[in-house]
Order: sequence, then C-alpha cells, then structure tokens
Amino acid sequence: MKDFAGTPGTVTGLVLRVSQCLFAAASIASMATTNNFFNITAFCYLIASMGLQVLWSFGLAFLDAYALAKKKVLHNHVLVSLFVVGDWVTATLSLAAASASAGVTMLYFSDLGSCQLGVECQKYQISIVFAFLSWITIAISSLIMFWLLAAG
Amino acid sequence: MKDFAGTPGTVTGLVLRVSQCLFAAASIASMATTNNFFNITAFCYLIASMGLQVLWSFGLAFLDAYALAKKKVLHNHVLVSLFVVGDWVTATLSLAAASASAGVTMLYFSDLGSCQLGVECQKYQISIVFAFLSWITIAISSLIMFWLLAAG
Repeated sequence: MKDFAGTPGTVTGLVLRVSQCLFAAASIASMATTNNFFNITAFCYLIASMGLQVLWSFGLAFLDAYALAKKKVLHNHVLVSLFVVGDWVTATLSLAAASASAGVTMLYFSDLGSCQLGVECQKYQISIVFAFLSWITIAISSLIMFWLLAAG
Repeated sequence: MKDFAGTPGTVTGLVLRVSQCLFAAASIASMATTNNFFNITAFCYLIASMGLQVLWSFGLAFLDAYALAKKKVLHNHVLVSLFVVGDWVTATLSLAAASASAGVTMLYFSDLGSCQLGVECQKYQISIVFAFLSWITIAISSLIMFWLLAAG
C-alpha cells in the first residue's frame, strides 16, 4: 500500500486523530455544561455522537503513536478496511449530529426571534462549531483511508 | 478504468441517478406543500439542498442514458474527478439538510410534546424520510465514484 500524508502510522495521521479527539471533547464539554441540553433530543444525540468520536479517534491516535514509536507499518488490507468502516460511520454520525443541533439552534436563534437562555446560547453555538471542526478532520481522515484502500 | 455496477454509463448507475432524482423531488413536493416551511430555516435549507440534488442527479441521469444509448464510455479521469466532487458536495449537503430538518422535527414531535399542525406534521416527516433515502442513494454513488477514481 502507498504511504502518503494522513495514512495510519504517520505524523499527519496522528495530528488528524488528536485534532478529532480534542474538537469532539471540546464539543461535549461545552454542551454538557449547559443546564437544558437533556430536554432536546438533537443535543443529546450530539453528545452521544461526539462521545463515540472521542473513543474512536483516541483509540486510533494511540495506535498511530505506537506505530510511530515502534516504527511498525499499519498498512494491511484488513486493518485499513476496519479503519475505513469506522471512519465512515463516525463521520456520518458526527455530521448528522452537528447538523441536527445546528438546525435546532437556528430555530431558537433566528426563526423564533432570539435565544433567551443567556450564556447557554453561546455554549450551544460553541459546541456545534467544535462538532463541525471535528467532522471536517474525520472527513479528511475518511477520504484518505478510503483512497488508501481503493488504491491498494 | 475498471467497469463495475454503478459506474457512469451503466444501467445500475442510471437507476441510482434516477432514484436520487425521484426521492429528492418527492422530498421537495412534500415539504413545499406545507404552509409554514418558510418560517423555519432548516426546512428552507432542505428544499434548497434537494433542489440542487435534483438538478445534479437529473444531469447525470441524462448523461448516463445518453452514454447507454450511444454506447459511449464515460470513464476518463477528468470526468470522474468532476463526478466525485459534485457527488460529495451534494451528498454532504443532503445529509446536513436532512439531519437539520430531522432535529427540528424531533423537537416539535417529542421534545415539546406533540406536533400541533395536523397534516403538516406528516408532510414534514415524509419529506425528511425521502431526503434520507435520497442521501443513501447519493452516498452509494459517491463511494462508487471515489473508488473508481482511486482504483484508476
């Protein structure tokens, strides 16, 4: 298999995984510190989806760091196929969760006048921005993994 | 380039494009016949996104039908790269729009009690189901196109 930036066991691959993990964790932290998130399904789904993203990305970051430290090569078809499926599932869930929360936030912020919940409103927005950033980084990883698998 | 089910200029490719087009058109039809969709940003975005999906999928369905009728081969790198970019953009927008609308609908249906708008509520749900069906078919097309490009 070819070796290019962002593939498993490279420094750029590790940076992408760590970014995914940090953005998802920041999104959870911002959303979970609001008082009313559990009343809204989309916000609960955002936390669940970002939680899954943290677990997945942390696991792969650990594997990348191990491969870099021990100079192991992680490019075999079974492993890359597993990464592709996991990346696509988490990327799809992250985009869906971020969009659903953004739809609800837009409803509160512009469609129904303005958000009346004070500092909570900013936290919702910050959480959604981090969720989209997390999605952008996982989408880049997904495309790289899929390319690696298809190009053999 | 390899030739497999779903690639441009094949019958399965044409079926996928026609399905995307029909599901997106059904989603627009169901949403646009409600009286209040223009008050909610997510629903307007759904219509815009599904409109783009109809245009894109109709164009490619036409191209597939032409290639099938004239027995032309559409597999060259520039054309497939263009299809990949277009497919990914429309697939991402479709998923985001369907999820945002689903988030708002969930808010109305379960978080705030039950939907009070009568038959409109069913139309919102039907529109979102069609939008997700359209996304599933465009996601399949996107993966096939990306594989075709990467596998060369």
